[in-house]
Amino acid sequence: MKTKKRTGHFTLPAQAGMDKEVKMFIEKWGVDAIRDSDGTTLSPEIVSMGPDVYSTICLIRVDQEWAKSHPDQCQQKFLMSFPVTAERDGELKIAIQKGYSNEQFQIDNVHAAKKYWEVIDRATGEVIDPDKWDFHNQSGEVVVHTARMGHVYTVNFLVYQIWETTSMYNYITNNWSGEHQMGVDPRQPETGTHLLQYLDTWLAAHPNTDYVRFTSMFYQFPLIKGENRETLYLDWSGYLDAMSALALDQFEQKFGYRLRSEDIVDQGYYCATDRIPKQPYLDWMAFVQEFVRSYTKQCVAKVHAAGKKAILFFCDHWIGTEPYLDGFEELGFDGIVGPCLSGVELRRIADVPGNFIKEVRLYPYFFEVNLQDEPVFKDDGDPVKECKKWWKNVRRALLRRCVDRIGFGGYLDLAIKHPDFLDYVEHLADEFRTVLDRTKKTKPYTLLKKVAILDCWGKARSWMHNDNWPQGHAPEFLSGFMADVKFVNFDDIRQRGIADDIGVIINWGRAESAWSGGHHWSDPVVIERMREFIMNGGGFIGIGDPAAHDYQGRYFQLADVLGVEKEIGHKAAWSKNIRSDVNCDHFIVKDVIGAIQLGVESSSVYISSSDAELLAGTSNAVHLATHTFGNGKAVYFADYMHNGQNMRLLHRAILWASGKEGELRRWFSSNIHTDCAFYPEVDEFVVMNNSEQDVTTTVFNGDGKSTFVNLKPLEMRWFTLDEINRLCK
Amino acid sequence: MKTKKRTGHFTLPAQAGMDKEVKMFIEKWGVDAIRDSDGTTLSPEIVSMGPDVYSTICLIRVDQEWAKSHPDQCQQKFLMSFPVTAERDGELKIAIQKGYSNEQFQIDNVHAAKKYWEVIDRATGEVIDPDKWDFHNQSGEVVVHTARMGHVYTVNFLVYQIWETTSMYNYITNNWSGEHQMGVDPRQPETGTHLLQYLDTWLAAHPNTDYVRFTSMFYQFPLIKGENRETLYLDWSGYLDAMSALALDQFEQKFGYRLRSEDIVDQGYYCATDRIPKQPYLDWMAFVQEFVRSYTKQCVAKVHAAGKKAILFFCDHWIGTEPYLDGFEELGFDGIVGPCLSGVELRRIADVPGNFIKEVRLYPYFFEVNLQDEPVFKDDGDPVKECKKWWKNVRRALLRRCVDRIGFGGYLDLAIKHPDFLDYVEHLADEFRTVLDRTKKTKPYTLLKKVAILDCWGKARSWMHNDNWPQGHAPEFLSGFMADVKFVNFDDIRQRGIADDIGVIINWGRAESAWSGGHHWSDPVVIERMREFIMNGGGFIGIGDPAAHDYQGRYFQLADVLGVEKEIGHKAAWSKNIRSDVNCDHFIVKDVIGAIQLGVESSSVYISSSDAELLAGTSNAVHLATHTFGNGKAVYFADYMHNGQNMRLLHRAILWASGKEGELRRWFSSNIHTDCAFYPEVDEFVVMNNSEQDVTTTVFNGDGKSTFVNLKPLEMRWFTLDEINRLCK
Repeated sequence: MKTKKRTGHFTLPAQAGMDKEVKMFIEKWGVDAIRDSDGTTLSPEIVSMGPDVYSTICLIRVDQEWAKSHPDQCQQKFLMSFPVTAERDGELKIAIQKGYSNEQFQIDNVHAAKKYWEVIDRATGEVIDPDKWDFHNQSGEVVVHTARMGHVYTVNFLVYQIWETTSMYNYITNNWSGEHQMGVDPRQPETGTHLLQYLDTWLAAHPNTDYVRFTSMFYQFPLIKGENRETLYLDWSGYLDAMSALALDQFEQKFGYRLRSEDIVDQGYYCATDRIPKQPYLDWMAFVQEFVRSYTKQCVAKVHAAGKKAILFFCDHWIGTEPYLDGFEELGFDGIVGPCLSGVELRRIADVPGNFIKEVRLYPYFFEVNLQDEPVFKDDGDPVKECKKWWKNVRRALLRRCVDRIGFGGYLDLAIKHPDFLDYVEHLADEFRTVLDRTKKTKPYTLLKKVAILDCWGKARSWMHNDNWPQGHAPEFLSGFMADVKFVNFDDIRQRGIADDIGVIINWGRAESAWSGGHHWSDPVVIERMREFIMNGGGFIGIGDPAAHDYQGRYFQLADVLGVEKEIGHKAAWSKNIRSDVNCDHFIVKDVIGAIQLGVESSSVYISSSDAELLAGTSNAVHLATHTFGNGKAVYFADYMHNGQNMRLLHRAILWASGKEGELRRWFSSNIHTDCAFYPEVDEFVVMNNSEQDVTTTVFNGDGKSTFVNLKPLEMRWFTLDEINRLCK
Repeated sequence: MKTKKRTGHFTLPAQAGMDKEVKMFIEKWGVDAIRDSDGTTLSPEIVSMGPDVYSTICLIRVDQEWAKSHPDQCQQKFLMSFPVTAERDGELKIAIQKGYSNEQFQIDNVHAAKKYWEVIDRATGEVIDPDKWDFHNQSGEVVVHTARMGHVYTVNFLVYQIWETTSMYNYITNNWSGEHQMGVDPRQPETGTHLLQYLDTWLAAHPNTDYVRFTSMFYQFPLIKGENRETLYLDWSGYLDAMSALALDQFEQKFGYRLRSEDIVDQGYYCATDRIPKQPYLDWMAFVQEFVRSYTKQCVAKVHAAGKKAILFFCDHWIGTEPYLDGFEELGFDGIVGPCLSGVELRRIADVPGNFIKEVRLYPYFFEVNLQDEPVFKDDGDPVKECKKWWKNVRRALLRRCVDRIGFGGYLDLAIKHPDFLDYVEHLADEFRTVLDRTKKTKPYTLLKKVAILDCWGKARSWMHNDNWPQGHAPEFLSGFMADVKFVNFDDIRQRGIADDIGVIINWGRAESAWSGGHHWSDPVVIERMREFIMNGGGFIGIGDPAAHDYQGRYFQLADVLGVEKEIGHKAAWSKNIRSDVNCDHFIVKDVIGAIQLGVESSSVYISSSDAELLAGTSNAVHLATHTFGNGKAVYFADYMHNGQNMRLLHRAILWASGKEGELRRWFSSNIHTDCAFYPEVDEFVVMNNSEQDVTTTVFNGDGKSTFVNLKPLEMRWFTLDEINRLCK
């Protein structure tokens, strides 16, 4: 008996002139929403099939005529000129935009340079008196009149962004020709008013549109191109692109102090999300958020007034909307959509607080090349392989927290040439709908206590870790792990302590980064609360440079907790005498089959407590170690590289650190290439092969009884509770 | 015709009851000086052979009865208790000496703890009010009354050193039993007077003594032992051991401020020589030097008054004498002796400014084990192999700057059991005397300009780099390289600029160490002078973390000079776009035969200038690269490991950086396992095999003409200028 084909929960892009093919997709993939774009008209036949119509709009570039006639209302940014070393005392000429794209940026010659810019002597940090330099618009040069030989000079200067970033990205990626689109700034009152009027008109002109998909709001995350279109800088959650002379003036009115260009330029590091944020940048973020949210609300209200629903594309110009910060729900969106190639990116969408539609756009895009510029829908590209590579990561996280919809993007005419891809996506869509059907989006069996990631950003940057993207780092593991994950920052700990629902705290990343935390670890309040938590039985897992800050005789401020310390040179005269043999019998390493390789080549970390246990590496080059502290436990990983063996190490480390070793064989699948989940509210169980080989695994039910299961490559196998319990002995 | 056997320039230790054997040594090794010690009486037969008699005296432990009856005048030191974490608010007990040797140290209960000690909260850096802690002498505990849960506490406390370090070292190494010797402090007026009187008596009691060998003066470099006699801390040039309550009080009178215990304890890093020195520690050094030199002068004067000569053992208690600082010659020593197992250690003795006898004590000691505690004169130890291993390094440096004498130390009864060793040392002594005879201690052919090592210490720590001891680092290469070496510090550059006689500056070491320089690189004066020097044609070689300091947007402050920069996390959002293929044809790598392995496993250094040249590694993990800057040149080495291939890399790098590539084949031996030297004042030439295999090499004379030379293992082959010129075509 053939099961009725499941349909729906699937969004497809339309493409002009491909009505017939769209019909095929609708049927094969169970598509129930079509995303059109200007220039596409859906045929009566398709309309009769009844899909929802998503229409995309990017307000800031929708009216290029307005942009062209109001160039001074286009978006702005601070750039720092590349450092120039003065070869002699006296006059130094700096071609300020040298090294940056002339297609993307144009020096702002509207606003007074001496008011907004800063010329800095980087040998001293001194801001050069504006009387001692001049800007020559014609040559694009700043001339420093009193440069000193051997000093290095930079200029923080305002530019207009004359090629909008998304437009630029699509244009370059797809080898488009034609006009470069510009982005206007709705903070400019005239433009702000115009865009709202434009939206009204646009809504009226789109009677068949059910959902307005904003792609997205106003300010792009920064993506800075160089002279040869190479990417110089990219920060998925950076706030550089919301800048303007007007914003600076308004900021001063609001915060009572004037933001310096250097507060944003940040020595050329541009306040990247990896940097420990300073107060002026945090103020700037709050300032941008206030405007973006207020203007967004007006946009969404207009969509609702037109009887349509509004969706936010949680990418591109998402800056300022901040889905993880309080108040996001009040913007009124009916849905949120994000691109998704990993478990982290799935959770980034799925975990957004709020009750609205969550949709992920899967990979590959139907573009000729992928994000790494490798061929996919051309030459010897293999879109099925590409799709499986990402889907298996996404799927793992989906079992922890499901979204409502999936979709793809790009050009249908590219996809349609690959029948194997059409078949695979049909299968993928079915897998997705099966998860929805069987789990009813209920919560899977989960450890009692949460795993917290502690960094400088906390919930504001939930699931936004780009370290080792796209392969992923420890958060990628957590995206599919059987614990709820909480993102906390140092202020949370300072102000509210460590919540009772947290079992294990993870601190990971490079020293002096926003992830590891830098100087926050010299705050005695943070240290007190951390030690109290661990002493009372909490778990601490440090990866890389946990709690690292060169302060008061320690580098790892929690060296006493971790039982290991890092040599950065200050203790070279000290012997590292504590010798420890590798303990191959520890609970954490019980499933290890090959050498433990965490991705770190060497390590300057040594065993500093005689009761620490070494699990990998040597006593003077620790890769993995454990230690107890009071009633709590700590695990140190020199690094984490996402693969089956390391996933199991971290899985066991979390259980060990939280004193839950006994829980290991409850709703557990033994093979490191598999995952499983049990849904107690609906009595469903699934075990899943993450690998592209056949595997056998031992599956344990809630009583710790087990059975063997053979799984085909990437297979998901569902059981009812009765079925799995019957099998387990 | 048998050449007359050369003799002399050789010092041998005496040993009680071994007169007959001593005679054999005198004849076989050409010994002309016997170092006796108390308890040894030289027989008339030996005296009749006429050797000089060296007698050793270590004033601070020569009179143990005095030490026992004046325990409060024994030497002192600050220790920092190991950090203790408070598990609760309130009372915290710290067993302050826990972890340190009870044999070596005894807590000072003579001087008021609250005056001299500091209890520090390492979570805040706060010094705890002395009212809030107490010391209990009986338990050896400090009780902090107001500890805070989760804070970490340490106690800086004074101890008496009840086991003098050299005594302890010899005792432990040779498994002695019996009484532990104590060291008294001549700064104590009563002890100071007593020791001078004792010296008078001692001199009168040693009529046969020609040379008084002080082994050495008063304060040992710190060697701190743990509870199980393991070495915890060792700093060959540290000033910890000159401490006393009295010294602290006198310091205050002299410098007008009170030295804090923390100025010495330094967060537990104990102001190791690897640390960037701060002013209070530099003041402390000057203070110690003043006393040591003044008291030393009195001792030497007494020796001279007794008609004898005085020699300083430049090891053990050498602290404060500072042979490389101005004024050392005024102390009046007639000679200086040092232990020597490398080229660096040879040069450390040979280069001491002053016209007096320079002697090196070679390795192995006639002890059962070596410095690494491996068997030498016992079990399956191989003293010949051990001797060759060090001698070949020493010998290489000897060709650059010869000393006057060699010697050995230890027990003759151990040496005599190894006839092969007796033969090898006979050969070695002959090699040494040949160098003396043929070179007449004249200066070999040398590059016109000097190579300078720039660090925080400059000439004060000439040839005192212990990095990678005993194998050696870049200075080991320089010890045998054909350039004069100059040691300069940042103050030299600030105050006097960069001298005209410098061709290449090397800065090497770990970031934020005294060797790399840390914050000195943010001093604009330093940066100006360095850039001016390089721009005008100077060479700069950076090894490891050159000019590294996180400041104003750069980590390598001379990144513009080097063409490379290090990623420490701040620029993670920046692409590292500059791609460079490895240039295998560069002058520097022309002699490379295998893979270039500098000792660094990974590297976070990337090419930051498009005109940098990559010679080893990859564009994003640079191991070796070059760059030009103005008229100057720079070379970056990610590390340096001392071996034949890397020696040649550095050799060529120095020539390239100083624009002297054309000089390569002048007085040059092509095989990387060989060295050569030409002595223009005496027209002698030597080529030498550093390896224990037969080698063939092409030797180039001063005109660049060449000839093949075959050398046996470790062979030194001498030629007159005429001979070598005749051979070269």
